[in-house]
Amino acid sequence: HMHVSIWAPPEGELLFPREPMVRVEGPIIDCQLLETALLNLMNFQTLVATKTARVVTAAQGHAISDFGLRRAQGPDGGLAVARASYIGGASSTSNVLAGKIYGIPVFGTHAHSWVMAFPTELDAFRAFARSMPKNCVLLLDTYDVHQGIKNAITVAKEMEASGEHLAAIRIDSGDLAKLTKEARTAFDQAGLSYVKISASNDLDEYTIQSLFAQGAPIDSFGVGTKLATCDPQPSLGGVYKLSAVRDTPGEPWSPVIKLSEMSYKRTIPGIQHIRRYYDASGIPVGDQIVDDSVDQGSTDAIDAVDSMVSYDFSSAKPTELLKQIVCDGVRTREPDSIEIAKSRCRDALMHLDPAVKRFLNPQVYPVGLEPGLAKLRYDLTRFERKGSGRDTTR
Amino acid sequence: HMHVSIWAPPEGELLFPREPMVRVEGPIIDCQLLETALLNLMNFQTLVATKTARVVTAAQGHAISDFGLRRAQGPDGGLAVARASYIGGASSTSNVLAGKIYGIPVFGTHAHSWVMAFPTELDAFRAFARSMPKNCVLLLDTYDVHQGIKNAITVAKEMEASGEHLAAIRIDSGDLAKLTKEARTAFDQAGLSYVKISASNDLDEYTIQSLFAQGAPIDSFGVGTKLATCDPQPSLGGVYKLSAVRDTPGEPWSPVIKLSEMSYKRTIPGIQHIRRYYDASGIPVGDQIVDDSVDQGSTDAIDAVDSMVSYDFSSAKPTELLKQIVCDGVRTREPDSIEIAKSRCRDALMHLDPAVKRFLNPQVYPVGLEPGLAKLRYDLTRFERKGSGRDTTR
Repeated sequence: HMHVSIWAPPEGELLFPREPMVRVEGPIIDCQLLETALLNLMNFQTLVATKTARVVTAAQGHAISDFGLRRAQGPDGGLAVARASYIGGASSTSNVLAGKIYGIPVFGTHAHSWVMAFPTELDAFRAFARSMPKNCVLLLDTYDVHQGIKNAITVAKEMEASGEHLAAIRIDSGDLAKLTKEARTAFDQAGLSYVKISASNDLDEYTIQSLFAQGAPIDSFGVGTKLATCDPQPSLGGVYKLSAVRDTPGEPWSPVIKLSEMSYKRTIPGIQHIRRYYDASGIPVGDQIVDDSVDQGSTDAIDAVDSMVSYDFSSAKPTELLKQIVCDGVRTREPDSIEIAKSRCRDALMHLDPAVKRFLNPQVYPVGLEPGLAKLRYDLTRFERKGSGRDTTR
Repeated sequence: HMHVSIWAPPEGELLFPREPMVRVEGPIIDCQLLETALLNLMNFQTLVATKTARVVTAAQGHAISDFGLRRAQGPDGGLAVARASYIGGASSTSNVLAGKIYGIPVFGTHAHSWVMAFPTELDAFRAFARSMPKNCVLLLDTYDVHQGIKNAITVAKEMEASGEHLAAIRIDSGDLAKLTKEARTAFDQAGLSYVKISASNDLDEYTIQSLFAQGAPIDSFGVGTKLATCDPQPSLGGVYKLSAVRDTPGEPWSPVIKLSEMSYKRTIPGIQHIRRYYDASGIPVGDQIVDDSVDQGSTDAIDAVDSMVSYDFSSAKPTELLKQIVCDGVRTREPDSIEIAKSRCRDALMHLDPAVKRFLNPQVYPVGLEPGLAKLRYDLTRFERKGSGRDTTR
């Protein structure tokens, strides 16, 4: 086996830019072999969970279902979308295989082609109601939503007559704010206020926020393309960097740094871990990246990008974020279930300052280096790297 | 097996918006089972091949290598990126597994961590030159590119002394135009004009075009994140629509249409195929979507979005684009090799009007409906759908 040890935060926990998501320690060849696999898995699933958390935040408690499989990068990509979006807050997926593999609730409605395969929309709705009496969701926009609403009301009344209830309708095109209001009014006037309204059609956190701002009476959302591809930011730029070396296992680590003309590509050296500070009410107030070998024991943190900015966490309580999950190639703890990861993510998001969660001009969550680590990074950048090599005298 | 027949264009051929990429005929349940799988495979691979074709066009004959695995949607996504980008015009991939599976040339350089693992950059370069004397590409921007150029020249001279040649250098950050010019000048002055320059760092067709506009002397490009995620358009919105139905195999087809408040979501009915028209010099001048049952034999085409616009292809020669690849569940022809698909794509792009290929305000390639099909669509939209059902009297 590989002689590596790995530390990572529990799945579903929140992380912020510049923080070590995974720390790998071991012989450099073993570590290098893990690089691309780890980046491939972490970058995409973290991105999808993040996008979903944004969409779920915009949906204000209304259910989000992953409809993204047809725009995902192959079958594996579709499974990763379903899994990560469920952890990020989605209630269900339309991906039946993901439901089977991960135990995620599966949700879907019929297609436009179902309607087109019948002589009339009304015939199609009646046939679907007969097939799915307990879970009937009718798609109204194959031809004309106004007529679709009438046909759905007809079928809902017929279902009532046989002791069933139409669960919901879905609208997948057109002015969703206007059309869902029309549908809500028509169903309420027909005594069908229990019928829910679902919407889909290239939705994301911004369109959902706008629909609620317009008063759209939508109960749930199918979110596909922009969730599976994380439009408009389709990549998470996580990298895998060497931060300390030693020639033999016994000797102390030498921290190393990668410089660049671009400050955001300058790495953080050392054996890093993260202290998250919580206030008395359980709200996280900021994170401190620490290297024990240079730890000054300070509760200050120097911003990783702008060294003129520092944060004071002295009134808050620290917790350790990274846990060891692999020791010398052997797993040291069972992975959490998907439900535990999902609830951890929900709890963490609930406790996050709303100013950090808003979409327009969000407050930046404070992340900084413990002063000893900030000094180490400064020294390596300013003095020790002048000769384009590392300090071999320490 | 499934009782479906499938028609598609040969792999690597160019298609344009509104055209049928794949036509599936069979029992509706078999066709429905194929929907998500086909969309998942076609949408993403077509998107990546298209993005790569754009990047390759911008690179004006300079080599492009797929560096996208770490930002792809899982291992399968990474393989799909490597395969589709090779067909779309990339010369190689950094994905070793894709090289093995598909026979794609594999290309890569060492990482920044290689340099950081050695006491000095010069030590690292020397060790790499010893390991890869025939294919040595040195990455210069771990600490300071100016010093990196000097160190690479030192190693290149040492390689010459032992009868080897430094193949290339790579720069992965900073002002690529400025730094590659500096490197070119320094290497030329040192009598090392055979050393090639490779660049990477969030490149896409626009940055590559800009680098050449600035006179950057770059010989090849590693393109990763924006190729694997097709930033800024991370999805291709291909859909799978029912266009004709019949109750029993013997009877004639009834064309069906899906309407919408949004005109771009209105489908094209009928059993469609595509005629591509070429002028005497082999340049495609436009495409006509045809349904044989209503074909008026016209060489005109009515634009699919703006019915006031029509195209006249009378002076050009038609060819049929869709070929049958599956007949009643049995494959009727072997798939082309990846090399044939790649050369088909290159030839097609070479013959495409430059006005269509440019990035800023491109000319729209003419695609229209044969007048008989345009009339059928108009009739279905305007008259037959008023009752939200299909005409069952024909």
